[in-house]
Amino acid sequence: MILRIVKDEGPITGEQIAERLSLTRATLRPDLAILTMSGYLDARPRVGYFYSGKTGSQLLGEHFRKLMVRDYKSVPAVCQEETSVYDAICTMFLEDVGTLFVVKEGGILTGVISRKDLLKSSMGSQDLQNIPVGVVMSRMPNIVSCHLDESLLDAAAKLIRNQVDSLPVVKEREESDHFEVVGRISKTTITRVFVEMGLGKSV
Amino acid sequence: MILRIVKDEGPITGEQIAERLSLTRATLRPDLAILTMSGYLDARPRVGYFYSGKTGSQLLGEHFRKLMVRDYKSVPAVCQEETSVYDAICTMFLEDVGTLFVVKEGGILTGVISRKDLLKSSMGSQDLQNIPVGVVMSRMPNIVSCHLDESLLDAAAKLIRNQVDSLPVVKEREESDHFEVVGRISKTTITRVFVEMGLGKSV
Repeated sequence: MILRIVKDEGPITGEQIAERLSLTRATLRPDLAILTMSGYLDARPRVGYFYSGKTGSQLLGEHFRKLMVRDYKSVPAVCQEETSVYDAICTMFLEDVGTLFVVKEGGILTGVISRKDLLKSSMGSQDLQNIPVGVVMSRMPNIVSCHLDESLLDAAAKLIRNQVDSLPVVKEREESDHFEVVGRISKTTITRVFVEMGLGKSV
Repeated sequence: MILRIVKDEGPITGEQIAERLSLTRATLRPDLAILTMSGYLDARPRVGYFYSGKTGSQLLGEHFRKLMVRDYKSVPAVCQEETSVYDAICTMFLEDVGTLFVVKEGGILTGVISRKDLLKSSMGSQDLQNIPVGVVMSRMPNIVSCHLDESLLDAAAKLIRNQVDSLPVVKEREESDHFEVVGRISKTTITRVFVEMGLGKSV
């Protein structure tokens, strides 16, 4: 009822809310404190209470926004454009990842190759040892990436929106428009964080 | 300070806590209300307050536990043991999934085959059209699955613990120890829920 009153008439003072409910200001104090502490209401001195417009789920969302790519990225697995598709598949198995980032000198990102890309190219009758990764990879600038200072939530949204399993975490090089690969965020990362949050180990 | 007192001396009445802090019971009421509402303290009539032992993260965890497999599962993509590896790869691309569940008559689960399994078998020099899925799949009972009434959190923990991308959602058949495949929970499912929670669309 308090929320409804503030929603309809806010900003409104505690005194006025108490009046509407035929209660004393003192009786109402704990409830107003709870609603303010939990973020449903905002209070401004000499103005009164107003509705924050935030639902319980939105408040939960604010927790999520504090998780940063920087703190959850894992080590990237890489190969070169000249690497054969056969060797790329071997690297993928050895490193136990679903995506390799293709780099040139200095760790500069030039492409991305996924298990799906490799599976597609392995269906042909060609010799996998003679096809270079450069022929079948997705190439810059058509690559979705994320930054160290981005939230994990934004990275997860990119994974879903672009239907990819993994994003390279990149750092812009000052001297050029090149991006250096410094990490990896995958659906596995997100699933692991989901489990940690759920078990109360994180956040 | 209230938490520390209750932790050390609980169960303890509001009156006693007020005494320890040299405050009146009335002054303390809003704080106790907040701590009880938010789950940090439990209160029992005629006993007093005691520490719930729950941290903020644990309370967040309780939100997670309410998300059930039943409400988030997606449609499973299936094939038969006799399907060729070549056709299985095609099905995987057509259905846009990373894992196929292998079933026999009545949708009974007999195996699971992942993009990784298919990639491994495609590296050999054999003709993919002549290798049946049954030869390369993981076979029951060595398959991790989940149930409709399990929490999404449990399913996510299984994905991480067993290092798989997808779990079949199964229903036990009454007449036998057979399991019917009724859905699929994957790292994509979990990532999508993570994004929805973060954007305040779910929970």
